[in-house]
Amino acid sequence: MTILIRGPAVVGRPGEELLPKADVVIEGRRFEAVVPRGGVEGKFDRVVEGEGGLLLPGLVNAHTHLAMTLLRNAAPDVPLDRWLTEHIWPRERRLRPQDAYWGTLLGLAEAIRSGTTAVADMYFHMDEVAGAVEEAGVRALLAYGIIAQTPDRVEPELGEAERFARAWDGAAEGRIRAALAPHAPSTCRAEVWKRAAALAHELKVPLHTHLAETREEGERVRAERGKSPTEWLEELGALSVPLLAAHCVHVSEKDVEILAAHGASAVHCPTSNLRLGCGIAPVAALLAGGVNVALGTDGAASAGDLNMLEEMRLASLLAGIRSGPGTLPPAAALRLATTGGAAALGLGKEAGTIEPGRRADGVLVRMDGPHFCPGGDPVADLVYGGQGLDVQAVFVDGRPLLLGGELQTLDLEKIRARCREISRRLRR
Amino acid sequence: MTILIRGPAVVGRPGEELLPKADVVIEGRRFEAVVPRGGVEGKFDRVVEGEGGLLLPGLVNAHTHLAMTLLRNAAPDVPLDRWLTEHIWPRERRLRPQDAYWGTLLGLAEAIRSGTTAVADMYFHMDEVAGAVEEAGVRALLAYGIIAQTPDRVEPELGEAERFARAWDGAAEGRIRAALAPHAPSTCRAEVWKRAAALAHELKVPLHTHLAETREEGERVRAERGKSPTEWLEELGALSVPLLAAHCVHVSEKDVEILAAHGASAVHCPTSNLRLGCGIAPVAALLAGGVNVALGTDGAASAGDLNMLEEMRLASLLAGIRSGPGTLPPAAALRLATTGGAAALGLGKEAGTIEPGRRADGVLVRMDGPHFCPGGDPVADLVYGGQGLDVQAVFVDGRPLLLGGELQTLDLEKIRARCREISRRLRR
Repeated sequence: MTILIRGPAVVGRPGEELLPKADVVIEGRRFEAVVPRGGVEGKFDRVVEGEGGLLLPGLVNAHTHLAMTLLRNAAPDVPLDRWLTEHIWPRERRLRPQDAYWGTLLGLAEAIRSGTTAVADMYFHMDEVAGAVEEAGVRALLAYGIIAQTPDRVEPELGEAERFARAWDGAAEGRIRAALAPHAPSTCRAEVWKRAAALAHELKVPLHTHLAETREEGERVRAERGKSPTEWLEELGALSVPLLAAHCVHVSEKDVEILAAHGASAVHCPTSNLRLGCGIAPVAALLAGGVNVALGTDGAASAGDLNMLEEMRLASLLAGIRSGPGTLPPAAALRLATTGGAAALGLGKEAGTIEPGRRADGVLVRMDGPHFCPGGDPVADLVYGGQGLDVQAVFVDGRPLLLGGELQTLDLEKIRARCREISRRLRR
Repeated sequence: MTILIRGPAVVGRPGEELLPKADVVIEGRRFEAVVPRGGVEGKFDRVVEGEGGLLLPGLVNAHTHLAMTLLRNAAPDVPLDRWLTEHIWPRERRLRPQDAYWGTLLGLAEAIRSGTTAVADMYFHMDEVAGAVEEAGVRALLAYGIIAQTPDRVEPELGEAERFARAWDGAAEGRIRAALAPHAPSTCRAEVWKRAAALAHELKVPLHTHLAETREEGERVRAERGKSPTEWLEELGALSVPLLAAHCVHVSEKDVEILAAHGASAVHCPTSNLRLGCGIAPVAALLAGGVNVALGTDGAASAGDLNMLEEMRLASLLAGIRSGPGTLPPAAALRLATTGGAAALGLGKEAGTIEPGRRADGVLVRMDGPHFCPGGDPVADLVYGGQGLDVQAVFVDGRPLLLGGELQTLDLEKIRARCREISRRLRR
């Protein structure tokens, strides 16, 4: 299929100059041409009117638990440990496989509606999660979340993680890639980390984990191991493969050096970190230290929503407080959500920019709302004022997942009805 | 005119239980009845379908400079002093009276579109600002911003402030109230503060100012006066009348006591404070100390937009970092933006809640987006995930300013065209 997106301003490579009025051609799964408006001739299977809008690379949500939409705002805002043990885990124990399917569909409906084209998800009932991803049409890095604090849990958890990875890596015409996801340094034994790293080597998949999310975790690991969680993971070999390290709130200078030296990606999840009292990740220091930084929402239970525009805005605002105003200007925040996320998901050469030859993952935003006027700096206007509902069209691999603000692959009414039913059972 | 809003969930008094399905009747300028769904009979001039939606009291933007939409994101994020002197003031010197009119209309279009029913504005060319407010139909507390650092500016500035207040207080059928607005402790001489306070007594109007916005201002005032800006204002009599004190980022315990003792209102502007590196206001301490706290966006030049839903979300998130998770839960954030704002604007007995006899200032939000599903806690879902574009209808004094997402009193196309023109001249 060929698609012409006619007339939008285009952010081809976030951080560089935008093209003020362009024609963008999609041929099959890839961008074919990005040229000044009027520079394209010929017939197209579909023409999408983009005049006055802004086309940007698809947003990458590099750390989430999609099915947790079922628990959206279901728990009060308390510190992470209590939040998990008193509120979330008891409810999750009632979660059936089909619930995860519907909760993931809801999460994907919301993600697509607000401009997300790729996600990194770790959860359980992952066959159902992967099925929902395949159906929705987004790109995803998926992993079964391994929790193994006692010896008897090691084999079953690693076994399930391996089974899922072997079954789904490369599925959905390559849109699904698998990862292995030991949940966190403090929830997995040393043996799990070593074996997961070895298996990741064998399967050529990355690791995905929660790292340095709370001060308390750091203190626990240091008391037990005499080193920081990052140092400990390095010792166990977990950084010898590509690592998505969600949060990285409490990292030392040395931790930053370790992450950079191994090419790990830090995934900044600002909303969740604030709500659960974790702190503000040192994004400027991570970037200055050479770490690839991506952005994520975390689950909707702690984030409230799965809106990457909000995470960009918050990342930019918080960097102003943590490291000084202007530290993470709008274009830099957009880089985290696009090129940074693509690199974290192992898509650095395939996605993250709008250029001929790249995968056609893009987002068209209408810019005619009063909140975007007078419009001197569209990227700043988008980051500081953009709303999910401003997103008009979303493409993944050249396939339209949203057009005219309407979901093309998902039946929202049905999803909402099922999720409300499930939620009533879970919250009881 | 009589209006029936049929079937929404209603937040009558923010912070208290919501009514899950209600009928709300507006008669003239006031709410006439709030009853369980189906409890109303009779004919109405207009029926607004609210089934599945959420009706809340109108949001109050208690500190803004509406015409600064013309300078939206026009300056880089640098510390406040440099931001004003190097970027904003030079552009504002080119601003003509008619520019302020169009910029204010744009600000009001954006504010109404995202659920704001009342604003407190201080700027210059205030006759034009007031004209725009009258036309748009919102409620407003308006003041000419007095800057008088040298003796020769005292008379002209106070004169203009008094002229404006006398001309406009009570205008637009009472929707417009005037204030006096010495710009800040460090930009107005002691004499200005004393005379403004005396004049406020005489005219029975409040004062509106920027207070304790930066650490540096506090240090300057302390070096000159031997006391904090708040202590100095108290000494000058500026707290003997109702005071809207925007920002209050750098206030001591003693300052909090002073503000509370005099019944002053602190206006929290979290986005602007982060972008200009001012810090995070101690909202929990202000509330605990008995200070009325309201919310504001500040101008769009530093906030990016005029979206009170975002300010609620950010206020809640930042309180989690500044004072611990759960310190300012969603219902409390909604109180700041409704009852807190109404009290700050002197409307405490007239607006801020949806109850029979109150002014009919209300906002209907559609809650059928995927980001609100499954919907166990509508107020949390709204504060953590609500978007301006979710707002469907807005009423002020019983008059619909927005219906079906469409502005009823303003011509957005015309406003956008004029503001783009003006902006090109200002940014040159």
